Amino acid sequence: MEQQVNVGLLGFGTVGSGVVRIIEAHQEQLLHQVGCPVQVKKILVKDFEKKRDVKVDPSILTNCPEDIIDNPEIDVVIEVIGGIDETKKYILTALKNKKHVVTANKDLMALHGGELLAAATENGCDLFYEASVGGGIPLIRSLVEGLSSDRITKMMGIINGTTNYILTKMSKEKASYEDVLKEAQKLGFAEADPTADVEGLDSARKMVILSTLGFSMKIHLDDVTVEGISKVGLDDIEYAKQFGYTIKLIGIAQRDNGRVEISVQPTLLPHAHPLASVNDEFNAVYVYGEAVGETMFYGPGAGQLPTATAIVSDLIAVVRNMRLGVNGKSVILPQFDRQLKEKDEIHSKYFLRFQVKDEAGAFSKISSLFAEHHISLEKLLQEPLDKNGMAQVVIVTHKTNKQAYEEVLIKLRDLDVVYEVKSSYRVEGE
Amino acid sequence: MEQQVNVGLLGFGTVGSGVVRIIEAHQEQLLHQVGCPVQVKKILVKDFEKKRDVKVDPSILTNCPEDIIDNPEIDVVIEVIGGIDETKKYILTALKNKKHVVTANKDLMALHGGELLAAATENGCDLFYEASVGGGIPLIRSLVEGLSSDRITKMMGIINGTTNYILTKMSKEKASYEDVLKEAQKLGFAEADPTADVEGLDSARKMVILSTLGFSMKIHLDDVTVEGISKVGLDDIEYAKQFGYTIKLIGIAQRDNGRVEISVQPTLLPHAHPLASVNDEFNAVYVYGEAVGETMFYGPGAGQLPTATAIVSDLIAVVRNMRLGVNGKSVILPQFDRQLKEKDEIHSKYFLRFQVKDEAGAFSKISSLFAEHHISLEKLLQEPLDKNGMAQVVIVTHKTNKQAYEEVLIKLRDLDVVYEVKSSYRVEGE
Repeated sequence: MEQQVNVGLLGFGTVGSGVVRIIEAHQEQLLHQVGCPVQVKKILVKDFEKKRDVKVDPSILTNCPEDIIDNPEIDVVIEVIGGIDETKKYILTALKNKKHVVTANKDLMALHGGELLAAATENGCDLFYEASVGGGIPLIRSLVEGLSSDRITKMMGIINGTTNYILTKMSKEKASYEDVLKEAQKLGFAEADPTADVEGLDSARKMVILSTLGFSMKIHLDDVTVEGISKVGLDDIEYAKQFGYTIKLIGIAQRDNGRVEISVQPTLLPHAHPLASVNDEFNAVYVYGEAVGETMFYGPGAGQLPTATAIVSDLIAVVRNMRLGVNGKSVILPQFDRQLKEKDEIHSKYFLRFQVKDEAGAFSKISSLFAEHHISLEKLLQEPLDKNGMAQVVIVTHKTNKQAYEEVLIKLRDLDVVYEVKSSYRVEGE
Repeated sequence: MEQQVNVGLLGFGTVGSGVVRIIEAHQEQLLHQVGCPVQVKKILVKDFEKKRDVKVDPSILTNCPEDIIDNPEIDVVIEVIGGIDETKKYILTALKNKKHVVTANKDLMALHGGELLAAATENGCDLFYEASVGGGIPLIRSLVEGLSSDRITKMMGIINGTTNYILTKMSKEKASYEDVLKEAQKLGFAEADPTADVEGLDSARKMVILSTLGFSMKIHLDDVTVEGISKVGLDDIEYAKQFGYTIKLIGIAQRDNGRVEISVQPTLLPHAHPLASVNDEFNAVYVYGEAVGETMFYGPGAGQLPTATAIVSDLIAVVRNMRLGVNGKSVILPQFDRQLKEKDEIHSKYFLRFQVKDEAGAFSKISSLFAEHHISLEKLLQEPLDKNGMAQVVIVTHKTNKQAYEEVLIKLRDLDVVYEVKSSYRVEGE
């Protein structure tokens, strides 16, 4: 029997409790897989008295991070407290003290992943973060190892459970965004402050992590164009349905000729597209490789035990590396400088809904505007509105470039016959 | 620059050519990932003159396997010739000569995986086989690493592209099994002798590999109950559709209370089940873990470049391990003795279609038979047939155990009112 591996846990909330539960429940299996016992030795908590769904010896609780990150007995630090600046300091200290780190912190990895991974390599330590994207789906490992021989050209997916839950409910129950959000908050599917989820920031951070790995480029959060779902209305969902589409919050990272675009936005997908039937809080990511073609990874994107599974799988990888003496050797730094596409290099279809004055010549003015910018229309619906003399126009364009489309959008708003542009979304998957 | 890694390729068919293409096309990327050049040094061929879709220096071709497996210059052997007994000898010799091995050979791994992995470990060599199941989908890696901390309870999937192509075409085009098979052979989606695919043996071998890994038990090919698709008729597909189901060839491996069942058979899935919309030659596997819940992996199950991608990803893993000096350390032998379920422990629904004499009391005899065996019926359809005085009966049972169901099936065939039992399939995914 080899020497025990001691784990220090930063944070003892939902996910932290899940980690403790899995490590306890799987002692025998862990022993078989890594050849030595693994034990949680210290846990950083804010509140000693808080009720938790796992029981631990109270003597291992501490409110002092140094008891973990400076503790020579601790071999591996698992970080599940979230936050950025202070947490970054903890992790850097832990690495400096030659402790391996497993984190679920997408915010931190998206912002400071490069610096943290460099510090890990420098100190001969592992830093794993499978749980930071896609919860229990082994997505990062698949990108780094399973598809390592391929050249990835596109990643497209649903990577935020809260927004997918909201859009699924809105679509199925014809309930308004506000009502569904409230219900989701009550059920614990949405945070009290849901901004990071519903405005797409959470997804954007995950896209930074995925595209940095998939394209081997250091992508910055600023490189991601972000739009959330808070303005998606039931009307949009219904008109999209009528045209054969489902609206999802989709992260897209695409590479063409060495240049990339990364974005997160409400996107229309044909009903038959596999991502269109990924419902509720589930996540799924399509990965397109030059050689492999298309693969998809589907699973729970969050939740106590799925996230804890990804963390403990990382822990197992750390302990295996410890036994082999190869920690800190698996990081591959980005190979390419990042080259972002200009707007006129980003091509897609668009769905556009606006209201016009229902008068002679109105549509001719509009269609000339599109024609001038060489945007042709694939689908078109015009119907009278209840409002006095107004009509609703819904359009799906053929593929066009973003530059031209945005110019049209600005000019459209200025047309005297146009009353209001209600919504505009990207269309993918055709 | 570190010393070059030399690869010997056993076989230069479709997949072998793909491997050479990927290694050549990705030299720069490979160099970045593994830190040293990787080169194909020798290729075993049968026919020196055969036209191939990649050009190589003719001097590296050989028809003598010893030029590779006994060649001190070769570091890694990639086996893509297929076959069992002779190929096994080649691999064992290569391992004895301290060469790492990457293979796509599911037949060999299903039958002799245990022995080969033991030989690899003994000789401090890697033996990787990601391409043996699910082509380009990084499935084995996900089971071994990504979900290593979880306890897998069920795997269910479409793992044979040929049969999925045939069933998809039958269902969409209402074409007969024989016609679609002929077309598939013409297009290269089915072999000249399609027996191993259509009779389920190929899927069974893959289920042996998946369940050995997923359940950490040494599963034998004999442990798998196998039924192919050659008897699936258009009538079955149509009646299934009418009841809301799609017929797929499904491999199932399920563990309950430490006891397992493994099977491959035509299976009815509700249209809304994600596996029901996995079409054409695509593969997909659902993995259920106690903690993670359900995850799914989808992608091309075969084909030159997808398979070659999996092989070269394994090659990269081997070379990384060489650089770290940890080859042969990653094999984890099965932890548990295998415990197979008895028939009365295997629970599922069944779809059953049979023809009866359309006479008074006929259905009462049939329903009493089911009732005696405590099998209740969920869905039922009876309709007259064109034949004289005959009726078609289609039934979906509630969940029952296999023992009881098979007894009923035998007795049903003996009933004087039953003319013929046409088909009987498992129903899953509800």
